[in-house]
Amino acid sequence: MLGDTGKRIVVQEVAPRDGFQIEPAFIPTEAKVALINALGETGLPAIEATSFASPKAIPALRDAEEVMRGIARASGVTYAALVPNLRGAERALAAGVDEMNLVMSVSETHNLANLRMTREQSFVQLCEVVRACAGRAAVNVSLATSFGCPMEGAVPEAEVWRWVSRVLDAGVSNITLADTTGMAHPAQMARMVGAFRDRWPNARLTLHLHNTRGLGLANVLAALGAGADRFDASLGGLGGCPYAPGATGNVCTEDLVHMLEAMGYRTGVNLPRLVACARSLPTLVGHEVPGQVAKAGRITDLHPAPVWLAEVRANALAKG
Amino acid sequence: MLGDTGKRIVVQEVAPRDGFQIEPAFIPTEAKVALINALGETGLPAIEATSFASPKAIPALRDAEEVMRGIARASGVTYAALVPNLRGAERALAAGVDEMNLVMSVSETHNLANLRMTREQSFVQLCEVVRACAGRAAVNVSLATSFGCPMEGAVPEAEVWRWVSRVLDAGVSNITLADTTGMAHPAQMARMVGAFRDRWPNARLTLHLHNTRGLGLANVLAALGAGADRFDASLGGLGGCPYAPGATGNVCTEDLVHMLEAMGYRTGVNLPRLVACARSLPTLVGHEVPGQVAKAGRITDLHPAPVWLAEVRANALAKG
Repeated sequence: MLGDTGKRIVVQEVAPRDGFQIEPAFIPTEAKVALINALGETGLPAIEATSFASPKAIPALRDAEEVMRGIARASGVTYAALVPNLRGAERALAAGVDEMNLVMSVSETHNLANLRMTREQSFVQLCEVVRACAGRAAVNVSLATSFGCPMEGAVPEAEVWRWVSRVLDAGVSNITLADTTGMAHPAQMARMVGAFRDRWPNARLTLHLHNTRGLGLANVLAALGAGADRFDASLGGLGGCPYAPGATGNVCTEDLVHMLEAMGYRTGVNLPRLVACARSLPTLVGHEVPGQVAKAGRITDLHPAPVWLAEVRANALAKG
Repeated sequence: MLGDTGKRIVVQEVAPRDGFQIEPAFIPTEAKVALINALGETGLPAIEATSFASPKAIPALRDAEEVMRGIARASGVTYAALVPNLRGAERALAAGVDEMNLVMSVSETHNLANLRMTREQSFVQLCEVVRACAGRAAVNVSLATSFGCPMEGAVPEAEVWRWVSRVLDAGVSNITLADTTGMAHPAQMARMVGAFRDRWPNARLTLHLHNTRGLGLANVLAALGAGADRFDASLGGLGGCPYAPGATGNVCTEDLVHMLEAMGYRTGVNLPRLVACARSLPTLVGHEVPGQVAKAGRITDLHPAPVWLAEVRANALAKG
């Protein structure tokens, strides 16, 4: 039901990882730490803080250890990190990451282009990481291109379910279906979320959606209608995709929280604090960001009537 | 049902009126005519071409007569215009406008600020225009601020229905509920569209939505779910609201058509032609526009795999 009053929806912040990783200018470690700390005070239940990739692969996040060491752990907040391989997992475990986010693509072409391995090779490596983390940190597996591949096109749903099954069989029950390049549409989203939940009601499903073609919040709405209750989002809508220059990135955290709260869902997030974080972004990253609520204000932020209105009203009433 | 396969959805283009009226630089008449002509060849069933307001009130559209005279009438396309009063209606009738769009606000404060009249005065004037147009042109009445007023805040739904009733009683069965400053959220949209259709199943309901807070397409989706089948939209997402600087404007036509077609609805619109129109806008208006699909391409616009992929694949396979 639309606007299921009081239902709790989990919104996970990914800007410090998925947003910052593609920023052309290096964001100083102290600035990253300050933003993550501010986000930790908003009530967001989870923050993906960094990536333990090789510094050569993602120079923008070469300070993963310093970031994890620098942040103040807010109580009740899960600090996650992207972990590409066993070496990254050991680094992340040493740095005290709460939850490891492992990624592979459902599309073979995208997996080869992005990870330089076949899916089979990625899956073997992923299972090694899962074993290494057992009992030491939570694990989530993100299946990229679950709603379409920018090179292969439509991805057969059976193929998505095959990889979900294999991940679950490997002992991971936290799964993210990622719309990596913003190819999902709402009818597809409703159908796939429904199918997932019917088949694996006890798995924890997260949706990681991009707004590349303006469909981000419409896809969230369709997913909510099909029972989804957990979403990644990126402050300011940071992030993006090299295949769609000029297009926006991830679903925007403050726009998502604003929609959910307006509809009567509970996110636990203090929206004014979150908007204050978002308004710090243009200075931090050196460019405008796509989020709308930080610019337009909330629905409930009213504007004073113009000063000349009293005179207009008097004149109008004088005419009868 | 989401993605009701084959259902026809009417998308009405409003950029030449609602978009161009707030452009700071005057758009030459020939350029307006050329764009309207190009839009007429896309399959869009209706285009709001201009406004017959006083040239002093809306200088950007001071060429209403020349625009109407200049355009080539595409077969099957309804050419509408905004008409603020009896004088405007006579001008529009003389210019051969097919459908008159009359506007008043449900919020008294907004009506005074926007039209410098009380709602009661606007309604009297509107009824005069309706009588003048009887048998000569179709009439649609747009109720602005139906989902909230930027100055008064929430607008009681009973107040919206009171004005809908009065308009219907005045003999107009084409009604637009307008979210003038982007204050609607999807739960409200679903509830209000459902209520309207239950009460007045034979009235023609159009939704005029803005994307001020990023909720435009999510609100469309909610309205579709409640049975709506007719939407205004603006090429490139042109338009906007003086109360939300930096925020986007109307729901973007090409993004809307793209979503609807992807979901299996029928709009009758040739999307590549529409996108070509949208891509002409930045040059025409002298600034970037918010629409996403014109930048990112359609879901089905694939990207070639990188040239180095064959080597990556060979190397990966060599490792077993």
